[in-house]
Amino acid sequence: MEPIKAKGREIFDIELEEDLLKKNEELARQNRKSLEKYKVLAIDIMGSIGTGKTSLIKSLIFHLKGKYEIGVIAGDLTTTIDADRIEKEGIKVVQVNTGKECHLDANLIRKALRKFDLTSLDLLFIENVGNLICPADFPLGSHRRVVVVSVTEGPWMVRKHPYIFSEADVVVINKIDLAEAMKVSPEKLAEDVYKINPAVRIIPANCIAGKGIKEIIQALSF
Amino acid sequence: MEPIKAKGREIFDIELEEDLLKKNEELARQNRKSLEKYKVLAIDIMGSIGTGKTSLIKSLIFHLKGKYEIGVIAGDLTTTIDADRIEKEGIKVVQVNTGKECHLDANLIRKALRKFDLTSLDLLFIENVGNLICPADFPLGSHRRVVVVSVTEGPWMVRKHPYIFSEADVVVINKIDLAEAMKVSPEKLAEDVYKINPAVRIIPANCIAGKGIKEIIQALSF
Repeated sequence: MEPIKAKGREIFDIELEEDLLKKNEELARQNRKSLEKYKVLAIDIMGSIGTGKTSLIKSLIFHLKGKYEIGVIAGDLTTTIDADRIEKEGIKVVQVNTGKECHLDANLIRKALRKFDLTSLDLLFIENVGNLICPADFPLGSHRRVVVVSVTEGPWMVRKHPYIFSEADVVVINKIDLAEAMKVSPEKLAEDVYKINPAVRIIPANCIAGKGIKEIIQALSF
Repeated sequence: MEPIKAKGREIFDIELEEDLLKKNEELARQNRKSLEKYKVLAIDIMGSIGTGKTSLIKSLIFHLKGKYEIGVIAGDLTTTIDADRIEKEGIKVVQVNTGKECHLDANLIRKALRKFDLTSLDLLFIENVGNLICPADFPLGSHRRVVVVSVTEGPWMVRKHPYIFSEADVVVINKIDLAEAMKVSPEKLAEDVYKINPAVRIIPANCIAGKGIKEIIQALSF
């Protein structure tokens, strides 16, 4: 079967798209500079809806909050559900609502950074919009990119989204307690990830139960 | 908390975006005309990765294939996994690979329609790219829009994606056999959908087991 390719289709102005991506990259570099000036380590956390990004951040906060000053930027289309859940941990959260946009971008992060006192911050977790496609193209200036996948997403989810895995430093395979019920093999998901990105660190986890969190912290090396 | 809004951010050329959406709408109208000329009913099936879009299509084919001539357009970033699964049912499938794009658009459907003999077709299922955000803005010319959600996506997935549910005619709440294990209430998900779109038909289902398929066929009224 010969697939129809979207490439080259007429209705998209590819040049503008490239221009936009370049502008985003420039702003991402500026964000990185600001973060480094104040010695803030920023971690971009990506993944589909319901994979456990918020639960991962809550678990990381639980393990790290005595040791480091932590802030969170929570991206979402319209709601503040995730931000509200994280705020309960006594952590400063800046909510970014993207409306109909399917990803955060460096400009939104630039604005959000202004709401923090960077001089006192050590760690910044950025919860991206729940989506496995769009955030891949928009670096934010973070030092690490984490992708959270869940066994509940079925056996083909890695192979169907190669781009986001090629950009990741750490991949968390979450909800491994449900792997058997879902008939999904975490080992096979990991194999698929390594094929796309041999340098990535992959950690099986159950974020709500706290399983794998220490290994994730180690993999993020701070 | 006052969220930062993406609206009005500088790096997006909103005018071009509007132009692009208008062009898509015009092409969608043309697709609809072609479909109606040949009396083909087209159904756009949307939903996140792993919710069961392909399983739904396979189950619909199983129930309908003696009665109607069926075709499928399968959208995916790069793979042909879904198309291969559906082809096993002896159905004509046209694969559309969107590369890095997070949705099908009317222009891609226009090209895909050329690969079918519309004179002999009765029903066309269009499996959109696995994403709950981007396809909402891009009508394809279909007669019905279906959103497949799964209890494995967690309790907040409807509230977090209002736009796609406001565009739907039928919502399938899939994998209800896993609701208890996931601690997610299908009734609450349905309540959330009705709040956004009171006119929608909502069907609980287990697509792999065939549960709810007859009700879905009825809701699609063909």
